[in-house]
Amino acid sequence: MKVTIPSGFKIGHFNDDYTGVTVILSKGAVAGCDCRGGGPGTRETDLLRPEKAMQKINAVVLTGGSAYGLASTVGVMDYLQKNGIGYKVGNKLVPIVTGAVIYDLNDRDYHYPTAEYGFKACENAGKTLEFGNIGVGKGATVGKIRGIKHASKSGVGAASVKVAGVTVTAVVAVNALGDVVDPETNKIIAGAKGKNGEFIDTEKCLSDGEFLKLLLGTNTTIGCILTDAKLDKVGANKLATIAHNGLARTIRPVHTDYDGDTLFVMSSDKKPVVNFAVLQSAVVKATMQAVVNAVTLTKDYEVICEEETEE
Amino acid sequence: MKVTIPSGFKIGHFNDDYTGVTVILSKGAVAGCDCRGGGPGTRETDLLRPEKAMQKINAVVLTGGSAYGLASTVGVMDYLQKNGIGYKVGNKLVPIVTGAVIYDLNDRDYHYPTAEYGFKACENAGKTLEFGNIGVGKGATVGKIRGIKHASKSGVGAASVKVAGVTVTAVVAVNALGDVVDPETNKIIAGAKGKNGEFIDTEKCLSDGEFLKLLLGTNTTIGCILTDAKLDKVGANKLATIAHNGLARTIRPVHTDYDGDTLFVMSSDKKPVVNFAVLQSAVVKATMQAVVNAVTLTKDYEVICEEETEE
Repeated sequence: MKVTIPSGFKIGHFNDDYTGVTVILSKGAVAGCDCRGGGPGTRETDLLRPEKAMQKINAVVLTGGSAYGLASTVGVMDYLQKNGIGYKVGNKLVPIVTGAVIYDLNDRDYHYPTAEYGFKACENAGKTLEFGNIGVGKGATVGKIRGIKHASKSGVGAASVKVAGVTVTAVVAVNALGDVVDPETNKIIAGAKGKNGEFIDTEKCLSDGEFLKLLLGTNTTIGCILTDAKLDKVGANKLATIAHNGLARTIRPVHTDYDGDTLFVMSSDKKPVVNFAVLQSAVVKATMQAVVNAVTLTKDYEVICEEETEE
Repeated sequence: MKVTIPSGFKIGHFNDDYTGVTVILSKGAVAGCDCRGGGPGTRETDLLRPEKAMQKINAVVLTGGSAYGLASTVGVMDYLQKNGIGYKVGNKLVPIVTGAVIYDLNDRDYHYPTAEYGFKACENAGKTLEFGNIGVGKGATVGKIRGIKHASKSGVGAASVKVAGVTVTAVVAVNALGDVVDPETNKIIAGAKGKNGEFIDTEKCLSDGEFLKLLLGTNTTIGCILTDAKLDKVGANKLATIAHNGLARTIRPVHTDYDGDTLFVMSSDKKPVVNFAVLQSAVVKATMQAVVNAVTLTKDYEVICEEETEE
């Protein structure tokens, strides 16, 4: 699986055996966000609205630990400030750090990514890169209508689409209530399992009224779409919105009251967009493939980090 | 100045000589938010939207330190969990902690409220209560078009309105770009000063095109309206919206691209509302008075904490 990280972005993970964090860093990216799930945990999403003044952000943090995991963003702020990255206000730098959480609290006592996890994920950014059962994906599972014991292991996946001179790369951590289907065949490839390990088909269960007492707010799919396409904030927000179609076509159900599904877009704002619908289609395609790669725990990534070009 | 804290809420401050944090705690409050300024710094505001599933929150954190100050929310999460307060998910509690920041970074090296500040503010909650140059108000100034040296000291103010059987209490930290006027007389009572200490009238300066190079993203007014009125999330969000009229009538200018003005509403959802417009007017009145009290650094509060009644 070939994945291209557009120039201007660095991705880093840090995790223990149970939970972790994935950061996507930029010296300044045009960004947007769409929070479509009913149970989100987010930080600094207001400033991403098109009418707000801030034009560039420095990090999207995807973290485990439910709302507790927002602690990891404190370490990301610290790292960026120490490395001279942030919005300049007088003689101070204020890094602009947004993010969202997945629920992966387990039977251990409250255990979640702290500031240290965020800092270390930043230190790891740009080094040898992999995806799968790592970073924010470490504690991810999918298909949780019968509880976590009957869910499938998931992770964080990535996928790229190159089209009309621009690169679109999706990084998605799948921790959904629903099952994941192969968007070509509509067959379930990860999800809730029955007594014999067979997929029970969560959507069918819901329409049959089964397992309704088991629904829990322990689910969420979060991610970030990176691109080098020239975009303003309105465009970035529009891409975040359409990226959710990538979830709609691969996760069934998704965007429920029991999911906190939130997708970000970061753009290095460099390459002209020939046609916006082409870009939108690329975003959906990359998001779908990233979801599939997340739940299949794809490991054989060939990651290409594009070089900065003279501006 | 008599201020009533409706039953079900506890307010606490913690600060050093430069910055601080004010927390408003609840075992479960219906809540809403309106972020109207151009440069906000916020946490967990997505879940306050009416269409999101979470129906109750546990804390609003008003903090100094710009975006760095969101670190204080980590201590609030920790305190609430240790005290058995939060949304129950399986055998875990996840406290629902929202908040917003003001910019009060000064010439010292990056100095902001950490998790410890948030924890200690929670420990102080419900104890002898004052407002003014305390908590989130510690580093607050107002009228900053000529920079902080020519601004007026401000703080965190509170004010209550009792009407038709319900209590509305506003807690507001005023750190605005603009000047504050007495809403009765329209006279400036705090704001940017000229060479001789006179108020220069920021709005007039802006319409004359003066000081435009000095505008800085170092401003914000944040606050929380507490009430015992019966409200759903839509109602709470509507009150947050109209509360901004209280800012519009006292701070000139307000809601600029250089302010991150954000107001929250928390309701204990107990007492029937006779007429919603009456409640809306009370919210505006309490907000205006809280702004005036913030910049006059009113100290002579008589704080009445209403008792929990049997439900």
